[in-house]
Amino acid sequence: MSEDGFTGTFRTRHLAIVGLGLMGGSLALALRPHIETIVACDPNPASREYALANGIVDEATDDLREAVSDAETVVMAAPVRTIIQLITNRIGAYLRSNTLLIDMGSTKQDICVAMGHLPVGIHAIGGHPMAGKERSGIAAADADLYRERPFVLCPTRRTTPATRLRALSFVEALGAVPIEMDALRHDRVVATISHLPYLLSVTLVATATHEAQQDDAVWRLAASGFRDMSRLSGSDVQMIGDILSTNTQAVATLLAEFRMQLAMLETLLISRDERKLVDALTPIREMRLKWAEEYEQKRTI
Amino acid sequence: MSEDGFTGTFRTRHLAIVGLGLMGGSLALALRPHIETIVACDPNPASREYALANGIVDEATDDLREAVSDAETVVMAAPVRTIIQLITNRIGAYLRSNTLLIDMGSTKQDICVAMGHLPVGIHAIGGHPMAGKERSGIAAADADLYRERPFVLCPTRRTTPATRLRALSFVEALGAVPIEMDALRHDRVVATISHLPYLLSVTLVATATHEAQQDDAVWRLAASGFRDMSRLSGSDVQMIGDILSTNTQAVATLLAEFRMQLAMLETLLISRDERKLVDALTPIREMRLKWAEEYEQKRTI
Repeated sequence: MSEDGFTGTFRTRHLAIVGLGLMGGSLALALRPHIETIVACDPNPASREYALANGIVDEATDDLREAVSDAETVVMAAPVRTIIQLITNRIGAYLRSNTLLIDMGSTKQDICVAMGHLPVGIHAIGGHPMAGKERSGIAAADADLYRERPFVLCPTRRTTPATRLRALSFVEALGAVPIEMDALRHDRVVATISHLPYLLSVTLVATATHEAQQDDAVWRLAASGFRDMSRLSGSDVQMIGDILSTNTQAVATLLAEFRMQLAMLETLLISRDERKLVDALTPIREMRLKWAEEYEQKRTI
Repeated sequence: MSEDGFTGTFRTRHLAIVGLGLMGGSLALALRPHIETIVACDPNPASREYALANGIVDEATDDLREAVSDAETVVMAAPVRTIIQLITNRIGAYLRSNTLLIDMGSTKQDICVAMGHLPVGIHAIGGHPMAGKERSGIAAADADLYRERPFVLCPTRRTTPATRLRALSFVEALGAVPIEMDALRHDRVVATISHLPYLLSVTLVATATHEAQQDDAVWRLAASGFRDMSRLSGSDVQMIGDILSTNTQAVATLLAEFRMQLAMLETLLISRDERKLVDALTPIREMRLKWAEEYEQKRTI
């Protein structure tokens, strides 16, 4: 059910998925019961073979036109810049009028702008499911990946009221929770909760590596706190490079904000004003505990 | 077994533990089989009652002299500045000559300096077990808390070769892994793997809180990556204030190093030189994966 109480039924006979990784494969598994034919497009023969052999999709091709030309719904589950290139260069000419085109890229502004230039008659809307796994690739695909997770929808110039209703029913069919917001706002939020944390994790490991060059006890003594804080630095660098490069301005803004907050805490630390330091740390701790409690409750529903 | 192959037997009839929290309580449980009498000192009546009612210690008092005057080994399991105050003001006068005095404070330089002023004849050595739990307090005490975990030992001016051997056998009796290093080095290592990560976690939550004042979608969309990166910000602020305030210089040094590393990555990001960015991220990712693999192996031994 959407924020304004919408409940519709997702009706698509032919679905095309562009990109057969974790996201595209999980989408196919989740929508299987709702769809007559799922066709996938991926340049990698191994991914196509895996998807066919495991009954994840009905057809698989490396020909974009072939994959999408009969589809009533097309989902782009590729890296952000691949999505932008496909939208800008080709896909508009291949789609039937009235097709619902939705993407699952991690940043939304550039994609939504590109979608705005598609032919009138294409129902294009930006999408970002807030779901993932440490493992990537189609072999990690999971029908429940999107279940109960937020699925952000961002309107484009090609989003009509009908587009929106179709997208909401698509998100519902996935078992996800639709959250509607404009692309600019989305990109700033993910810079805060995802891209900044990644950069902090990477920079922490870079700093520890630098220290370990003088004293390898760093690695021997690092424990669970360091493990948690360094986990994101193990993410796929190509994927992250793609994401950061399409969200530079928001990320730079958040880094500036981060530095300001860090400077305030450091001032209290260096001036040895412990009472003020503890007073500053207390509401931050409380905010985290409150968020974590609500988050874990949502996860166990 | 110590790094140089030492294996001794821990022989103490009377053990005193100063501080009945998670650390002191776990120590008592772990050493129970080796000791005739364990006496604890804590100002909190509830902690003393809990420890007595659950058979964690044999005697409990709020009188330091009473607790330590018959002990052959005294372990200080209190906040860093409490330890320093006890060493500086009183404990030397209460201890018998030849007593082994070891502490479990999270920073070592100030404590080890204070220990150096104790009467000759006291065997004083700094200690820091790299173990902990999200829950604190004696009710969370766990006989296996220190098992297989590193236990750092830092020599003081009151550490003789005999002190060292007795401390090594103490660490072995705990089932922990002794790692010997000087206090300055210890404090820089923990600034890297523990205090810097805490400050990053806190500053991330402060930044997200600031963003959420304009857009509460921040909290609704934050997920597992943010959860991992924000976990440390939920730590006990009094304990952390105590730790940071006794390690200001090392923490400030690490913050300066962190800022330098962050500026390098940000330069690559803002200049949109994605190939160089990915080239910089790749070895960091590899270092993290290598460390995490070794760490998880150690954890499952």
